[in-house]
Amino acid sequence: MGNTFGQLFRITTWGESHGGGVGVVVDGCPPRVKLSAADIQPDLDRRRPGQSRIVTPRKETDAVQILSGVFEGRTLGTPISMWVKNEDQRSEAYAEMATKFRPSHADYTYQAKFGIRAWPGGGRTSARETIGRVAAGAIAKKILRERFGVEVLAYVKQVKNLVADVDCAKVKFRDIESNIVRCPDAAMAEKMIRLIERTRNAGDTVGGIIEGVARGVPPGWGEPVFDRLEADLAKAMLSLPASKAFEIGSGFGGILLTGREHNDPFRMKGGKVRTTSNSSGGIQGGISNGEPIYFRVAFKPVATVMHEQDTVSVDLKNTTLKGRGRHDPCVLPRAVPMVEAMTALVLVDHALRHTAQCG
Amino acid sequence: MGNTFGQLFRITTWGESHGGGVGVVVDGCPPRVKLSAADIQPDLDRRRPGQSRIVTPRKETDAVQILSGVFEGRTLGTPISMWVKNEDQRSEAYAEMATKFRPSHADYTYQAKFGIRAWPGGGRTSARETIGRVAAGAIAKKILRERFGVEVLAYVKQVKNLVADVDCAKVKFRDIESNIVRCPDAAMAEKMIRLIERTRNAGDTVGGIIEGVARGVPPGWGEPVFDRLEADLAKAMLSLPASKAFEIGSGFGGILLTGREHNDPFRMKGGKVRTTSNSSGGIQGGISNGEPIYFRVAFKPVATVMHEQDTVSVDLKNTTLKGRGRHDPCVLPRAVPMVEAMTALVLVDHALRHTAQCG
Amino acid sequence: MGNTFGQLFRITTWGESHGGGVGVVVDGCPPRVKLSAADIQPDLDRRRPGQSRIVTPRKETDAVQILSGVFEGRTLGTPISMWVKNEDQRSEAYAEMATKFRPSHADYTYQAKFGIRAWPGGGRTSARETIGRVAAGAIAKKILRERFGVEVLAYVKQVKNLVADVDCAKVKFRDIESNIVRCPDAAMAEKMIRLIERTRNAGDTVGGIIEGVARGVPPGWGEPVFDRLEADLAKAMLSLPASKAFEIGSGFGGILLTGREHNDPFRMKGGKVRTTSNSSGGIQGGISNGEPIYFRVAFKPVATVMHEQDTVSVDLKNTTLKGRGRHDPCVLPRAVPMVEAMTALVLVDHALRHTAQCG
Amino acid sequence: MGNTFGQLFRITTWGESHGGGVGVVVDGCPPRVKLSAADIQPDLDRRRPGQSRIVTPRKETDAVQILSGVFEGRTLGTPISMWVKNEDQRSEAYAEMATKFRPSHADYTYQAKFGIRAWPGGGRTSARETIGRVAAGAIAKKILRERFGVEVLAYVKQVKNLVADVDCAKVKFRDIESNIVRCPDAAMAEKMIRLIERTRNAGDTVGGIIEGVARGVPPGWGEPVFDRLEADLAKAMLSLPASKAFEIGSGFGGILLTGREHNDPFRMKGGKVRTTSNSSGGIQGGISNGEPIYFRVAFKPVATVMHEQDTVSVDLKNTTLKGRGRHDPCVLPRAVPMVEAMTALVLVDHALRHTAQCG
Repeated sequence: MGNTFGQLFRITTWGESHGGGVGVVVDGCPPRVKLSAADIQPDLDRRRPGQSRIVTPRKETDAVQILSGVFEGRTLGTPISMWVKNEDQRSEAYAEMATKFRPSHADYTYQAKFGIRAWPGGGRTSARETIGRVAAGAIAKKILRERFGVEVLAYVKQVKNLVADVDCAKVKFRDIESNIVRCPDAAMAEKMIRLIERTRNAGDTVGGIIEGVARGVPPGWGEPVFDRLEADLAKAMLSLPASKAFEIGSGFGGILLTGREHNDPFRMKGGKVRTTSNSSGGIQGGISNGEPIYFRVAFKPVATVMHEQDTVSVDLKNTTLKGRGRHDPCVLPRAVPMVEAMTALVLVDHALRHTAQCG
Repeated sequence: MGNTFGQLFRITTWGESHGGGVGVVVDGCPPRVKLSAADIQPDLDRRRPGQSRIVTPRKETDAVQILSGVFEGRTLGTPISMWVKNEDQRSEAYAEMATKFRPSHADYTYQAKFGIRAWPGGGRTSARETIGRVAAGAIAKKILRERFGVEVLAYVKQVKNLVADVDCAKVKFRDIESNIVRCPDAAMAEKMIRLIERTRNAGDTVGGIIEGVARGVPPGWGEPVFDRLEADLAKAMLSLPASKAFEIGSGFGGILLTGREHNDPFRMKGGKVRTTSNSSGGIQGGISNGEPIYFRVAFKPVATVMHEQDTVSVDLKNTTLKGRGRHDPCVLPRAVPMVEAMTALVLVDHALRHTAQCG
Repeated sequence: MGNTFGQLFRITTWGESHGGGVGVVVDGCPPRVKLSAADIQPDLDRRRPGQSRIVTPRKETDAVQILSGVFEGRTLGTPISMWVKNEDQRSEAYAEMATKFRPSHADYTYQAKFGIRAWPGGGRTSARETIGRVAAGAIAKKILRERFGVEVLAYVKQVKNLVADVDCAKVKFRDIESNIVRCPDAAMAEKMIRLIERTRNAGDTVGGIIEGVARGVPPGWGEPVFDRLEADLAKAMLSLPASKAFEIGSGFGGILLTGREHNDPFRMKGGKVRTTSNSSGGIQGGISNGEPIYFRVAFKPVATVMHEQDTVSVDLKNTTLKGRGRHDPCVLPRAVPMVEAMTALVLVDHALRHTAQCG
Repeated sequence: MGNTFGQLFRITTWGESHGGGVGVVVDGCPPRVKLSAADIQPDLDRRRPGQSRIVTPRKETDAVQILSGVFEGRTLGTPISMWVKNEDQRSEAYAEMATKFRPSHADYTYQAKFGIRAWPGGGRTSARETIGRVAAGAIAKKILRERFGVEVLAYVKQVKNLVADVDCAKVKFRDIESNIVRCPDAAMAEKMIRLIERTRNAGDTVGGIIEGVARGVPPGWGEPVFDRLEADLAKAMLSLPASKAFEIGSGFGGILLTGREHNDPFRMKGGKVRTTSNSSGGIQGGISNGEPIYFRVAFKPVATVMHEQDTVSVDLKNTTLKGRGRHDPCVLPRAVPMVEAMTALVLVDHALRHTAQCG
């Protein structure tokens, strides 16, 4: 259970780190959208291990195949099934995972829940699961862009204590992609890269914050009460591996302001109702107000480190475990397309829901 | 749409601030649970306006009626319909709301979405909507306590810059309820109360943080991938009025640690797999690991202030608006039972889901 | 569970035969639809006991109250909560039901499932549950009529072996309502009424067939594969109390034809693609083709008869049971608005789904 | 939309007749069920074209691959992705389908809905879509058999006017599979086969009835109101290609009986509550009562015939169309495993739902 996301633009991901591959089925995609693998592969390449010296070095090409739902270059309105084969299948590299639970991974909890787990590569807990999300998200981003004029972006805002200076209302995709850490503040990006490299060389890992932004969302998307836009975004973000926190608009910082300071006054501008500040993060009462939607997501440092750590074996004895080979020092650069994908999936779903009830 | 929460223990809330009342239908409740209004009213009283000098002074008794689903004092397994009549119906107090959008409220976004809104008292955007959640949450808490041995608590952790010192693993309900701000750190509670009173007297408002905790959750609740326990908690919390942020375990603070520092080592203790720290917040890979689940939710300062603010009228002209009468200086004391309710609803739903697939 | 129907126009019914009442929450209704109790009460009156001499004689006024979701005579887009109080609460009339399972009722299965049951009046198994459906269906019919030009009708096609002659493409509401059995074939209606009266006088009951029709449905509603229009109609109809069978278009009779005979040739007519016959019943591959949608539903004879029958007591001993007082000889006249309601609920849901994906 | 079935044991099918293949993702399968392709292939072989002289002669091996969700021969509790490659890709055989709508197929309605369709082989409307259902159903049947002691069977009850004599309470799988028409009445099976052959030789097609039965279902499965067991079965059956009708227990025939005749008296038998007749078809009030569940499904004659028929072209002109090559004279033998699969999917879903709420 729990492998489906969305109400009307609905995705179901499947697949373990080892085995036949990973994939996704997208149901509810509007018909007649131009679509080919070339629309999807670039985001998978941004998510791919081995793309730069500061991410996990495994070699995976992650070439997507579209198995259904597209005919003569256009979507049919029927389910779009996409599949990426698994390649890098060195189970032996993971042999110790068969007998010991890795600290702060999900080995133990999967075993506790299911009484079985696919230990090679972490099985379903592997970040490979996000391939399906990123592939589906690429379609969602395309629909948002072409049919609704909505642009979705994400970038690294902070690595450990290094905070970038970025204006979410103006940041450009090419600035984000201009460096391997995906931080549009070029000077800070350099520092971040050096910090990640130092951390990797010390056999350790580091976390940080990704900021996501959606520009061009019209007023009116989102549902009152439970399916508020920010609630669905929060769920989407906290469903990403290694995420620990979400804040929208003023977020945790907003509690240091009084109501007078925090409120966003309305003013007419260009014939539209606008706000002169944006503590609300573009959403009020769960519904978009036309301002940029922006939020931040915290990702903890990657759990696999090259140091011996206390743990427990599958036969419930105290033991220790140490990471082997080369490790992933920082998930952030690869998580950027994941944040974009989940944002786009939430938004396109709400776009369709809004059309259904109020359109 | 969007007025239903949960998969197996499913609640649907309804009702506007003015009109026939507010209520909730709970579907999927296990049969034969002892239940009467006396199980529900105490939490509604904790949510009620007018309960103390630091919350909104409106007089509402909020007496719950159970209309269905209970027979001879026990649940039937059929839908439990609960209803609270609206009483305090002075529409005239809200007359200006008919013609002007209140800043940082949802008046404008509802109008933009639906092309209509119930302006008296904010209609569906009123916090009265949470009555249904708190009523349903009281049932969920009872089931968790009696059938699963799980205790759910919440308390005020921070008001503006005043931070309480609380051990989430040990805090007791009676300490939380020992003061009107619902902060178990008695000394800090006094300061918080004074701050709220000063703020109220200045016609302003203040926000803060509520911490929630669930103790006794067995390993194995939660679903991989999208319906992770922390993802569903994040959605639940961000669906509460005025909430802006959610963090679980180490949260945003965890990004200042390295992986070595952040990881939770496993050790055997009393025949059980335990962790010696709890950066994970009791959840790993979306599934509970048996440690206390704890998280924090930020609530912005209440939007209604007693000062003139810029805004826009419904006929799209610039104007100003000033709150009238007595206002609510801080939502936190009343939000505590809301956080408990949403936490319990998430947990009982996952308890049933776990039983279905793995039980 | 199982008390919610629909994806986008979603209804949740609640209530037992005795207790606080019965009701429904409608979520997803489009905003700005003119609505008052006067739109709903007429269908509840058609469903009401005691409306004529051939239905159950209990006196129930079944006056509906709209508690939420409507403001100044128009829907808000928020949940519409509707409630009908229970009045006729003579539990003593049902005392024997506390200790014996009524044959071919759901007393035993509810007890087996839940370990508890509300025996007075059958509790949740009572046909009073359909009040919520009929109330919600009245809204659905209004939307279909006003926004989509779709007309939904149902009528009694057969009582026991008495078969009416009706053209589903032309039948009119006023002809259906011109007699108490709701059969538009006036001559046959007379015979049906006499049969029902004779059966009632013999302390027995009789079943039959209701035919439903939807005219004006445009081509394109319905989903491929599982949520085919006919599949959702079948579920809707088989969810009605006492229903045992569903057939669409040619139905069971179609199997006596060969493919050549059964196929519906396409011809252009008035610039539209039409079929020259309608074995398909207006649906092909789960999607409407623009022709009238028609189907038949079989309702078994009412289970409560005025004769002694073998049964089992709640303490699992063989015993007998005989109905008391005045019984309901035939459910058909009152089931007509139920069939209409469920048809309309299916159609409006698919109308919204179609708009969302393809509109 | 509409490509997912089930609440807790949830399947999503995908795939067109031509293209990458067809498949299914099963989410919610209990963990640790022994599973390999060998459990699934036999049912796919029973569904396969070319399996006998009385079904469509296309050659398809339909070899299933399990891509995820199984580890070391047991289910993981994670999604099970299954895939069957498309092989028989002679698009040219279907060239005329590009320009003309086949009568009583779904070509026109798909075009009307989506504004696009995959015409080769019927695309998503092809019966190949049912491969995913049958594969998922094989898992469902295994779980029902091994964990709940429930046996699901289906067989051909009638071909045109030829009616078999079968006792649904006693019929055996090996008798069903003893002949190519899958009718356990051996004498009638011979006649049916000859009728199908004669019809095929005349370039025509024939329909009939499949009866399904589930034995060993304990009392208590099924939900009140909308998700009644018979309602979900009706939806499941009407979602199968070419199905037109569903009846449970006494069905349409039951309306010729009075209530006295139709009722199923309860009697104690072997310490259990049993009924001495089974007009109810094993379900009362939507919940199983422990008796065999049996129902009948009507399948219309296959639409493709070897005769010229009136139709309309995609550019909306009157024209004619005649089937080419060798056609499928009767869908019934291949529909038997489809009926079993859908029955098993409904039952296993309700088994898990019952466990969740009442278990």
